[in-house]
Amino acid sequence: MVRVALDAMGGDQGVAEAVEGAAALSREERPVQVLLVGELDAIRAALEDQRYDPRWLQIIPATGCVGMAEKPRAALDSMPNCSINVAAKLVRDGEADALVSAGHTGATILAASDHFERLPGIRRTALAAVYPTEQRHGPRGDPFALMLDVGATLNATAEDLVSFAVMGSAYAKIISDNPDPRVALLSNGTEPNKGTPNIVGAHAILSQMSTVNFAGNVEGLDIPRGTVDVIVCEGFLGNVVLKMLEGVSEVVADLARDAYARKFLWRLGLTMLSQGIRQLRGMTDWKQYGGAPVLGFDRVVIKAHGRSNARAIRNAVKVAAKAVDRGLSEQIRAGLAPLNDRK
Amino acid sequence: MVRVALDAMGGDQGVAEAVEGAAALSREERPVQVLLVGELDAIRAALEDQRYDPRWLQIIPATGCVGMAEKPRAALDSMPNCSINVAAKLVRDGEADALVSAGHTGATILAASDHFERLPGIRRTALAAVYPTEQRHGPRGDPFALMLDVGATLNATAEDLVSFAVMGSAYAKIISDNPDPRVALLSNGTEPNKGTPNIVGAHAILSQMSTVNFAGNVEGLDIPRGTVDVIVCEGFLGNVVLKMLEGVSEVVADLARDAYARKFLWRLGLTMLSQGIRQLRGMTDWKQYGGAPVLGFDRVVIKAHGRSNARAIRNAVKVAAKAVDRGLSEQIRAGLAPLNDRK
Repeated sequence: MVRVALDAMGGDQGVAEAVEGAAALSREERPVQVLLVGELDAIRAALEDQRYDPRWLQIIPATGCVGMAEKPRAALDSMPNCSINVAAKLVRDGEADALVSAGHTGATILAASDHFERLPGIRRTALAAVYPTEQRHGPRGDPFALMLDVGATLNATAEDLVSFAVMGSAYAKIISDNPDPRVALLSNGTEPNKGTPNIVGAHAILSQMSTVNFAGNVEGLDIPRGTVDVIVCEGFLGNVVLKMLEGVSEVVADLARDAYARKFLWRLGLTMLSQGIRQLRGMTDWKQYGGAPVLGFDRVVIKAHGRSNARAIRNAVKVAAKAVDRGLSEQIRAGLAPLNDRK
Repeated sequence: MVRVALDAMGGDQGVAEAVEGAAALSREERPVQVLLVGELDAIRAALEDQRYDPRWLQIIPATGCVGMAEKPRAALDSMPNCSINVAAKLVRDGEADALVSAGHTGATILAASDHFERLPGIRRTALAAVYPTEQRHGPRGDPFALMLDVGATLNATAEDLVSFAVMGSAYAKIISDNPDPRVALLSNGTEPNKGTPNIVGAHAILSQMSTVNFAGNVEGLDIPRGTVDVIVCEGFLGNVVLKMLEGVSEVVADLARDAYARKFLWRLGLTMLSQGIRQLRGMTDWKQYGGAPVLGFDRVVIKAHGRSNARAIRNAVKVAAKAVDRGLSEQIRAGLAPLNDRK
């Protein structure tokens, strides 16, 4: 039975959504042991509104929570018993197997970095994001692809990019049931010599590695197309690209709303199209699809979106349990073996 | 009367489209003197199919043309009299005021770099792209914003980014009739300390400059929203982002086509919506809107899209003439004065 420490306080939606997600999970056929970490009274009050199976829920008290606008280092230091710190310590001490939080991204990564070790051969961690694409991936026909890093490591060396490729490949194997995910570097051209020196260097190393199904470089065009299963880039680039995808979905939705308001015939057309539009919006609204893994630590860490509702929290906990169950860390270690052996 | 040297050979659509564009322009009320540079026989043959005013067209013979798949340095060196070399030399020697090409982007920038000087204070040149946004910009209510660099300079120093900001501002003033364009740096957060060291450094310099209306940092979300008039970034990032915008438009169009094919009700809805969809596609198809300026040289250089048709070529020549007429180089010099004076 996998045990997940859930920071119940951090999300924008407050403790009620986190508790509702955990309660719903406890009633499922294959529940996960969830340690709800946060203010005792708040969690107890939220639980009173829920039906849940008490065997799978446990409350671990914590004091305070890092707010979205706080500086993470100062907040963690001034609140040693805040929810994310307590949750991370539970995982460090072996009382839980994975950490899940919908709170402050920087604070989550920093708490993990304070309490966990990095896997051998990993110099920098990476935050990975799942995003929708036009093509279907893997044997399950998953429309989602993975991109990393999207903000944990602004500048990455060639070796960092290679370790991101290995970690992304391991995560895609486990979560998307894709036995051999195609991994590519994001660059300004497909030729091996295209890009900044770290990309050219990573290309040379990855071309020689048997543990990653390396597809070479892809370009910006290939991101929404979904040409490959895993796209690797520096955190700065990944962050800009991911936020831009979010902006594009908003603009498309706005344009549709605008068309709706303007013309009767368009309105009629849009009403008829509503099912299709809902489907399109679902495809571009990646927030509902579980959490983003923070990769590189010897423990499983899943960062759920700040705006996660109960369903998103439940999905993030499930993803964390699956990553533990299927041995994410061991997969990453195996993928890195050719590099670590070389040293 | 502005004279434009047009590389008539380089575009994917061949010499006929370039000649048709120039011919159409010669019949307008305010024509531009166009020097058609390329194979004499091919241009003459193409002109036979056109109505044109011979006062505004002149043929300048050249031998050969850089193909899209060629290495630009080797191609330019082995073909000293190819169309882009001859056209650039005409501008260098003062026989024309601006260079326009729909050919190989790298070869266009390299030919300009071989034959023109950079403006004082400009260390690296930038390729700027016009792209559609949700908001309207400037007093004309232009839905387009400018992004630079999108591929001329992969890595830029803080000073390079500042010079890109000045050049982008000058170009937006002239081409979009926007007297005071808002200029921002693309980063992973809006705070002044967010981003890579070159961005943080550029932010500090731009905050002190009176010649640029600096709006601080913007994020990926702001690109499609059109929060500002000019977005400044390194060429590597700009290239990935621009190609991604292109990919997103393609995917939206594909999804609409797919919906059309699948369901009768959707099909009916889409037919009714067709006017709206055309408008959306027009907004995301920036290829039809003139050319991309190569900024930083002491001469005006406009790179038209490789797939330019006659109308796009004509627009690119008009944009070049407008940039000359309104003193683009002088505007850039004036904008850089605070920096050059400091040295």
